Amino acid sequence: MKVNGKDYRTVWMEKSAVMVINQRLLPHKFEIKALSNHIETAEAICDMTVRGAGAIGAAAGYGMAQVFLEAPSEEPRRSVYIQQGYERLKNTRPTAKDLFYAIERVKQAGLAGSAHDAVAEAERIADNYIHAAELIGKYGAELISDGMTILTHCNAGWLAFVDWGSALAPIYFAHRAGKKVSVIVDETRPRCQGARLTAWELHAEGIAVKVIADNAAGFLMRRGQIDIVITGADRIAANGDVANKIGTYEKALCAKANGVPFYVAAPASTFDLDCANGWDIPIEQRNDDEVLYANGLSDSGQITRVRLAPQGVGAINLAFDVTPAELIDGIITEYGIIKPTPDQIAKIMNERK
Amino acid sequence: MKVNGKDYRTVWMEKSAVMVINQRLLPHKFEIKALSNHIETAEAICDMTVRGAGAIGAAAGYGMAQVFLEAPSEEPRRSVYIQQGYERLKNTRPTAKDLFYAIERVKQAGLAGSAHDAVAEAERIADNYIHAAELIGKYGAELISDGMTILTHCNAGWLAFVDWGSALAPIYFAHRAGKKVSVIVDETRPRCQGARLTAWELHAEGIAVKVIADNAAGFLMRRGQIDIVITGADRIAANGDVANKIGTYEKALCAKANGVPFYVAAPASTFDLDCANGWDIPIEQRNDDEVLYANGLSDSGQITRVRLAPQGVGAINLAFDVTPAELIDGIITEYGIIKPTPDQIAKIMNERK
Repeated sequence: MKVNGKDYRTVWMEKSAVMVINQRLLPHKFEIKALSNHIETAEAICDMTVRGAGAIGAAAGYGMAQVFLEAPSEEPRRSVYIQQGYERLKNTRPTAKDLFYAIERVKQAGLAGSAHDAVAEAERIADNYIHAAELIGKYGAELISDGMTILTHCNAGWLAFVDWGSALAPIYFAHRAGKKVSVIVDETRPRCQGARLTAWELHAEGIAVKVIADNAAGFLMRRGQIDIVITGADRIAANGDVANKIGTYEKALCAKANGVPFYVAAPASTFDLDCANGWDIPIEQRNDDEVLYANGLSDSGQITRVRLAPQGVGAINLAFDVTPAELIDGIITEYGIIKPTPDQIAKIMNERK
Repeated sequence: MKVNGKDYRTVWMEKSAVMVINQRLLPHKFEIKALSNHIETAEAICDMTVRGAGAIGAAAGYGMAQVFLEAPSEEPRRSVYIQQGYERLKNTRPTAKDLFYAIERVKQAGLAGSAHDAVAEAERIADNYIHAAELIGKYGAELISDGMTILTHCNAGWLAFVDWGSALAPIYFAHRAGKKVSVIVDETRPRCQGARLTAWELHAEGIAVKVIADNAAGFLMRRGQIDIVITGADRIAANGDVANKIGTYEKALCAKANGVPFYVAAPASTFDLDCANGWDIPIEQRNDDEVLYANGLSDSGQITRVRLAPQGVGAINLAFDVTPAELIDGIITEYGIIKPTPDQIAKIMNERK
C-alpha cells in the first residue's frame, strides 16, 4: 500500500537486512527499521516492531534466511548455528501459526540447497502472502454490500500481512470497487492496534473509520449499527476454532446474540491440523505492564507511556483468545469462503498440497 | 472507608461547600476538592471529578441544597434562581437515575421548608446511601463463598457511592467476614475507572485484585477463571433491564454463555418505573477525545494524556449500555436480592414508599 505516495510492503529484504515498518511508533511516526541479522529480527518479532500473523510469518521466514546467510561454512558449527537460529526464531511468539510455517519452509529450503535458496523461499512466502491476500480480498468483498458498516478488531490489515491484509483486504477491495463502506474498529487494548494501526491504514485509504472502546461493540450491535464483523486469525484448529487477538471471542458472542454475521479472514498457512481444537492452541501471556500502562503521543509530541493503575497492582495479560467454531459464520481464505468445519478445512488443506 | 488511616466519605458538606474526593486524579494523587457553589458542583459532576451512580446522587443532592443556600430571599428572583439551579444540576449527566432522584427530593424539601431543610434532606440522602450500601453488602456477601474469584466492571465501589459501594460492598463484607476472595477488574476504557479506582480501593483494603484489558473477561470465563460477576447500575427499568457502564452488556453475554452467575447491585433509588424497558433509558454520548486519548501518570510523575489514534480519526463514545433483564441472575438491593422482573421490582418499590 502507499504511504506518502510511495508503495511499501510491511516487511522485505535488502541484501542481508530485513526491513520492516516500525509498528511500535505508528501512527505517530513512520519509520523503516533495518534488522541486520536474525537476532535483531527475532527481537523485532518479540517486541512487536513487526506484528500480525502474516507479517510475523514473512519476517520470520526472512529471519530464517538470515540464519543461512550468517551461518559459518564448516561443520559442525554450521548445523549448530542453523539449529540455534531456528530455535531463537521459533521461541519469539507462541500463538501465530504462520511463524512456524514460514521458518520450517525456509529451513527445509536452506538445508536442501544453499543460503540463496533460503532467501528465495522466504521471498516466495512473502509473495504468496500478497497473492493470498488478494484472493481473500476478492472473495471477502462479495460479503460487503454498498452502505455497510463493518466491525473489525485489532489490526489484520496490510501492516499485519505483507500487503492488503486478511480482515481488511475485503474492505479495501469493496472500497476500490466503488462500494461505500464504513468501519468501526475496537481500539484493542492493551496495545491498541485497532486505534493505532487499523485507524491509520483505513484513514490513509480514505475509508471512513471510527474508533470505539473495546467494550462498546456489543451495544452497537444491539442497536443495529453494525452489519458484519470481520477479524483476522493467528491460528485455526482442525475443527475451525480460531485463536485471534484477545476480545475476538467476546465480539463473536455479541454477533451471535444479535444476529450479526461473523467472519474470520486467513490464508491456509494459518490453519494448524495438529491442533484438534482450540484448547490445543498455546496462548501467549505477555508482560503485565502492557495492561497497566498505555502508550501514545503526548501533547508535546513525545511518544510516552502513562501508568493507569496504582502501584502494587498486577494484571492478567493474555494476548489471544479462542473463538469456538460454532460462533463463526465462515472463514475467508484464498480458496474461497469455507464453513469452519473439519471437512471443509481438510479439503482446502488438501488442495494446497 | 479509610485513606491513609483516616475515614472518608466520597462526598460530604462543610458549611456551604460540597467536598469531594477528586476522582480524576486517583490513583495517582489523593486530593479533596471544595465546590463552593452549585455551579462548581454541577461542573464537578459533568467532568467526573465526582462520578458513580450513588456519588452523583449525593453530590447532586448537596448541590441542590447549595442552590437553596445561595438563592436570594425576594420573589420572583428566588423561584427563578431555584429553578435555574435545578435545571443546571439536572442537565449535568443524563443516564444515572440517582441524580434526578436526589435533586427532586431536595428541591421538594427546600420548597416545602427552608434552605436548612434542603441541607437536612441532602444529608439524609447521603446517609441513606450508606445504609443501603451496608444492606447490599450484607445480602450480596451471601453470594460469595470462600476462595471465589469475582469479576467486576468499572467502579461501583465506595468512590461511586458515599461509602462501601454497590457492587463492591458484598466483596468488602465477604472479605471482612474472613472469606478469602480475589477480584478481577476490567480496566474499563475509556476512563479506566476499573484500573484506576476499583484497583485502588481493593488494594487499599488488602483484597487481591488484578486488572485485565476490557476484552479479556470472556475468555477467562471460558477457561473457568471467574466464579461470579457483580456490577453496579446507573438506571434500572421497570422490566429489569439495566443501564450501566459501557461493556456491562458484553460481560453479561459472556457470563450467560459460560454459565457464570451475573448479578447487579443497586439501591432502590436507581430504579426508574417511568422507563418501561431499557430502550427508554437515555444513553449519554461523551466527547470523542476520551476514546482517542488515555490519561495516566508519566514516568516523570506528571498526570498526562497521550493520544492513541491518528489525527483526523474520530470515535463513538457511548458511556453506558443496556443489559437486558434475561441476562441477569439477580439484583442485590437493600431489600434483599430480587429477580429482574416487573413484579419483584414493583414489590420493592412499594415497600419503599
